[in-house]
Amino acid sequence: MTNCLFCQIANNDIPSIKVYEDDIVFAMMDIFPESKGHLLIIPKTHGENLFEVDDKALAHLIGVSKKIAKASKTALNADGIKIVQFNGKAAGQTVFHYHMHVVPAYEGVNFKRHAGQQADTEELQQLAEKIKSALN
Amino acid sequence: MTNCLFCQIANNDIPSIKVYEDDIVFAMMDIFPESKGHLLIIPKTHGENLFEVDDKALAHLIGVSKKIAKASKTALNADGIKIVQFNGKAAGQTVFHYHMHVVPAYEGVNFKRHAGQQADTEELQQLAEKIKSALN
Repeated sequence: MTNCLFCQIANNDIPSIKVYEDDIVFAMMDIFPESKGHLLIIPKTHGENLFEVDDKALAHLIGVSKKIAKASKTALNADGIKIVQFNGKAAGQTVFHYHMHVVPAYEGVNFKRHAGQQADTEELQQLAEKIKSALN
Repeated sequence: MTNCLFCQIANNDIPSIKVYEDDIVFAMMDIFPESKGHLLIIPKTHGENLFEVDDKALAHLIGVSKKIAKASKTALNADGIKIVQFNGKAAGQTVFHYHMHVVPAYEGVNFKRHAGQQADTEELQQLAEKIKSALN
């Protein structure tokens, strides 16, 4: 969809810091991270939410999420990983193109809930490089 | 695992209010619901977290989550659905057998975060029946 932020990012019309990409999905750093290393996994084909993404893409995506979650945990020395995915404004969805949050957890550090401050681009790039290295 | 709560529930050694079951996964009502209709989808084979569940089971599970989320939304007139899945104590995991939370969202109603009070069994059974009817 031409007016969808994540479709535009998928098409590289809007820049993003990607950590992974294949024919079906891509993963990029969340610019409003809840924790260090928070990223999003997004199907390339538009679907507003869980109900609209086709089963094959979902099956592929959850496999990718396992690999990326594992790489993030290792690369960032995280103590855990929270997976979150919102469907509908009432549930907390803000961009209406399906996306799965992969949020590293660190003992003794609370998650920041959309503090509204954008993360430093250079720091996000460094985190992305670490995760990419652990993925390979 | 004999000392795992969710393995014992999967084997029907401990009772639960199930809404769905097949060879690979089952879904049951969460007895400490964050909202009306909160349920869990659980692989029958033990795996502590996302990293330990095999890819085929995960692929199947996310397809089932789509069907159950849709049925719950319809049956309960929910405005949205939140999907959450914790890996590791630091991320919020409390039972160490993979489980995906499917949490209905209602406009103007906040999620309850483990208020500690167990839900009324009869009410959970009624909610489960509604979801089951919408699944068929």
